[in-house]
Amino acid sequence: MAIVLITGASGFVAKYLISEVLNDDVNNYVIGVDIANPASIPALWRDRVEFRKINLLEDESVKRLVKETSPEKIFHLASFSSVAKSWESPAFSFNNNLNIFLNILEAVREKKTKTRILSVGSSEEYGDKSFKDIPFTEDSEVKPTSPYGVARVSQEMLSRVYVFGYGLDIVLTRSFNHIGPFQREQFVIPGFIKQFVESERNSKKEFVLKSGNVEVVRDFSDVRDVVKAYSLLMQKGISGQIYNVCSGKGESLVQIIGIIEKYMNMKAILRKDPELFRPMENHVIIGDNSKIKKQCGWDREYTIEQTIADTVDYWREKLRSENNT
Amino acid sequence: MAIVLITGASGFVAKYLISEVLNDDVNNYVIGVDIANPASIPALWRDRVEFRKINLLEDESVKRLVKETSPEKIFHLASFSSVAKSWESPAFSFNNNLNIFLNILEAVREKKTKTRILSVGSSEEYGDKSFKDIPFTEDSEVKPTSPYGVARVSQEMLSRVYVFGYGLDIVLTRSFNHIGPFQREQFVIPGFIKQFVESERNSKKEFVLKSGNVEVVRDFSDVRDVVKAYSLLMQKGISGQIYNVCSGKGESLVQIIGIIEKYMNMKAILRKDPELFRPMENHVIIGDNSKIKKQCGWDREYTIEQTIADTVDYWREKLRSENNT
Repeated sequence: MAIVLITGASGFVAKYLISEVLNDDVNNYVIGVDIANPASIPALWRDRVEFRKINLLEDESVKRLVKETSPEKIFHLASFSSVAKSWESPAFSFNNNLNIFLNILEAVREKKTKTRILSVGSSEEYGDKSFKDIPFTEDSEVKPTSPYGVARVSQEMLSRVYVFGYGLDIVLTRSFNHIGPFQREQFVIPGFIKQFVESERNSKKEFVLKSGNVEVVRDFSDVRDVVKAYSLLMQKGISGQIYNVCSGKGESLVQIIGIIEKYMNMKAILRKDPELFRPMENHVIIGDNSKIKKQCGWDREYTIEQTIADTVDYWREKLRSENNT
Repeated sequence: MAIVLITGASGFVAKYLISEVLNDDVNNYVIGVDIANPASIPALWRDRVEFRKINLLEDESVKRLVKETSPEKIFHLASFSSVAKSWESPAFSFNNNLNIFLNILEAVREKKTKTRILSVGSSEEYGDKSFKDIPFTEDSEVKPTSPYGVARVSQEMLSRVYVFGYGLDIVLTRSFNHIGPFQREQFVIPGFIKQFVESERNSKKEFVLKSGNVEVVRDFSDVRDVVKAYSLLMQKGISGQIYNVCSGKGESLVQIIGIIEKYMNMKAILRKDPELFRPMENHVIIGDNSKIKKQCGWDREYTIEQTIADTVDYWREKLRSENNT
């Protein structure tokens, strides 16, 4: 039996990653860790998954966890990942993200076991780049402009120190935007989709959509493709190396709104809400995914249209069932 | 009266900076902050300096301090600055350095006053560079290899976010090695000099010197030149910009040992102590100081020979007086 630790186990990405890991190898046994209550587990998996409610900010708890479970792999998904929130509370966002990460590295360093760790970074790390740098490769210089982006670059630099200075085994990602069913409405795309579905439920074909800056271009992947990438990276990635996890394509938020409109046969009238604008914003973020394709044999399976359709259907079902209770 | 806050006020650099700031302008009033007991203040300055014993890790104390004193300038010297210690306790070094820094930025952001802050960085930020990159300019990419170096890069990235995202006024340095009288023996040069002076006191002309890797080349400045640079940067530096503070010259530790030998007319037989080696070490660190020279009119006044001589004399006096009590 191979113990696989997944932090942030009650979150959006873990919902998919747990199944991915259990499917990968019949010997895998998942221990999910989160500060929130555990997500529901499909009956199929129940004898191969357990949950532990742990505050990763408590270093002693993390040490005990690693000591007791001797994990072969740790997928570290837990984070305070909202860029918007990081602008409200920069010190909080920075400190907490780095604290939980360092607690894990220190626990592994102290235990001296051979544990492979996935360090999840972000496209926010690239930051203030010029158009000629697009698409961003892993060698592009990072110039983060948000407190969240800074935390992720710091995490990456610390990882390299632990790999090259202490011999830890860490594979690093720079994960671009990912979307799909079950993502919370605080994020931009599910935020839009929820507004669409609410209007649909009120039988409106046309409605006013509240938005921030919709001209920005982002690189969106389906969460199901993302967890496939994470799983492959933990099998084939090279320790100390960074891998973009992205589609390689750019879509402006206006284009995404267009895809939603088309699928739902509705029309959104945009109303920009200054409160949704950020102090600094990167205009275009598109990644180059050649490295993970070449080294790990990864490729995306979901088109953006498919992802949007599945996400809309998820919100339709969610709002319907919430309304019925 | 202009309030000038100096953190790390009981430390090596502050000892010189306090005088520098008071000399600069008769209106300057210094509030020194440290977790340690205050250093002794020359009688001359006593009505223009006060000390407060504060733990900068306590965010509420820092907020109260900034609120009560409304400083015009903050020279943030306080740090956990030992690279060697950062290898022993990487998480501690990283968290504490960033926590105290963020507490200061948050206090200023909350108070919304026009306070200029000096963020002191380090040549350790440059890290793993190739020889062709020497001397390092401020535009050189940073690739820190020690936990301490990572903390300093993080501090720099956070500074830029606070400048460009929140409008704070922060001038940044990358300070290379600085030496001089009063530096503690935990640092490499005073550590050497203390061993020399102890042997001299035992009337030995030749002795065994314990050292780490003495082939490394570093860029040394006299602490008195460094505080002059800090003072000029706070007067003429541009907010959000980074300035190397360095001599522009490289000296290997072997060369420094040679300068000490010559001044003291002694001979050291080197014995390398594996415990003094670090997991990763940059071989050559030399900075380019054109920017601060050009923009701020700074130049160094002390030669390395002068600095070494003054430091040897300081240790001679220190060990003599310690022995007499």
